[in-house]
Amino acid sequence: MSYPHVFSGNPLDRADVLRRDETALADAAAAAESRYLLLWNLNVLIIEDHEAPAIAWLTAPDVQRLEIDTPPVLLGLDRGVAHFTLDVSALGDPLHELNLGPPWQFADARAAAARLPMAETGILAQARSQVDWHRRHGFCSVCGTRTHQFKGGHVRRCSGCGAEHFPRTDPVAIMLIVDGDRCLLGQSAGRLARTGMYSALAGFIDQGESIEEAVRREVLEEAGIRVGRVRYHSSQPWPFPSSLMIGCHGMAESVDIRIDQEEMTDVRFFARDAVRAAMDRLLAGTPAADPTVLKVPGPIAIAHHLIRAWVDGEVDFA
Amino acid sequence: MSYPHVFSGNPLDRADVLRRDETALADAAAAAESRYLLLWNLNVLIIEDHEAPAIAWLTAPDVQRLEIDTPPVLLGLDRGVAHFTLDVSALGDPLHELNLGPPWQFADARAAAARLPMAETGILAQARSQVDWHRRHGFCSVCGTRTHQFKGGHVRRCSGCGAEHFPRTDPVAIMLIVDGDRCLLGQSAGRLARTGMYSALAGFIDQGESIEEAVRREVLEEAGIRVGRVRYHSSQPWPFPSSLMIGCHGMAESVDIRIDQEEMTDVRFFARDAVRAAMDRLLAGTPAADPTVLKVPGPIAIAHHLIRAWVDGEVDFA
Repeated sequence: MSYPHVFSGNPLDRADVLRRDETALADAAAAAESRYLLLWNLNVLIIEDHEAPAIAWLTAPDVQRLEIDTPPVLLGLDRGVAHFTLDVSALGDPLHELNLGPPWQFADARAAAARLPMAETGILAQARSQVDWHRRHGFCSVCGTRTHQFKGGHVRRCSGCGAEHFPRTDPVAIMLIVDGDRCLLGQSAGRLARTGMYSALAGFIDQGESIEEAVRREVLEEAGIRVGRVRYHSSQPWPFPSSLMIGCHGMAESVDIRIDQEEMTDVRFFARDAVRAAMDRLLAGTPAADPTVLKVPGPIAIAHHLIRAWVDGEVDFA
Repeated sequence: MSYPHVFSGNPLDRADVLRRDETALADAAAAAESRYLLLWNLNVLIIEDHEAPAIAWLTAPDVQRLEIDTPPVLLGLDRGVAHFTLDVSALGDPLHELNLGPPWQFADARAAAARLPMAETGILAQARSQVDWHRRHGFCSVCGTRTHQFKGGHVRRCSGCGAEHFPRTDPVAIMLIVDGDRCLLGQSAGRLARTGMYSALAGFIDQGESIEEAVRREVLEEAGIRVGRVRYHSSQPWPFPSSLMIGCHGMAESVDIRIDQEEMTDVRFFARDAVRAAMDRLLAGTPAADPTVLKVPGPIAIAHHLIRAWVDGEVDFA
């Protein structure tokens, strides 16, 4: 099943053919009907004059006034209209230079995503990951010389050795491990520990490792639990900065938890009833204030959907 | 199901805790019992004095004679013994310097993988991807200054700006698209076109894209076919240089093929009987010499297993 995850559902055609033609790309970037999504220090320009916020698309004439050296990155086409994203972090106060004020604002991408229309969260994911990658890849990792972007941002080429560099996407395994009528949830060091929230375990997939191997390795490292069967559930782009969350369920083959104290502050098995109650409180908008009462992640995170599928009896290891 | 793909099944413990202790890492690298897998221009040192080849593990005293500046990369632990890989590409003739000749040889990694024991192909995948990444990341992509490795090779840190860089794994969607009793196979520009071999379509997953979205986009771009339901099958590390092949089946929702002529030389629907016959010839070791007769990929590739699962009636879109 294709899950309707936040940060997926991008409706733009990524326009692989247009990307191969630098002249057509330049024409599209200057065309009056083309649209621009602005990022400033990775915050996204939105407009909030209705009930819900929306991406504030600007036009080519708007952005030409800004005299930004950074080239725009092509996101794709919508019914023939080119959509770009532009990093305006070089400006001290881009809203002022654009003569914009409220209801326009630069918003934190994660906070905005929880309220933007679903299709716009997909566009935001693409834009934020691509801009972040270009910001961090102005030099060639092979020889140290400056790089420049081509193909509308799908490649950077070294002006010294000619090496080509492509935007990276980091696959992350995120897994709900099940032992009969209990599931394994953890608090990683940092943010979650102060909130009473427990979530699915997760970690980057290493080089030379399958998804299923990464699930087993991470759970063994973080919690000391051996995992047998692994079932893929769904996947979600997560643009902080450019992860691909690959959600799975796994069957526990051992029960004695041994926590990696550097990575995790707590890992426990929770009974299905307790997890269902936490999910019900969350969905009812009445999470427990008591930090000792279990809380689970909200629907912006794939972990929420992994937990919910198991609570609802949808996980089948057969 | 966890599929026994070539390049998976690495038995080493990646030793996350040992990686955090630079002194312990240095001790392990110098320990007489530690073992070294050598790569020379990405070819792997094997020994072939029995019926089948095997990785030729060397010892710390062996490699100390080589006076290589490149630091070893920790692969992991096997029953407490540290296993490293070492890039000896700086040497003109490492076999000579090691006083080794036949049956020792540096072999092409892909050719060797088809004959090595399965567990060793997993180790080879990890080693080849890691060495390739370090070779291409001696400089910081943020500021152009030199980088140095830490954590046994799990991070490179910039000596200028301090930015940390992590080995990359590139997720690739590879998909067998099914239309009733036919499946969609293609020849990409290049190698396959000269052999009569057709394979599953594939492409890198973009930033801000789920696995399922990448499957639909790539098939639409390369073949003009719309895809509905997508089902995950299995995944395979593919160390050329560092892909994670994510294998899926998908249901065609249109039938008129429109080929991307820059990427593909041919894409066609093939009847199940024709594909089964090609699979039977391959497994019997009697592929057709005639380049106009369908050939399918061998079992080293995940495409083989996607095709075989469909031929065998194991694909369920319900």
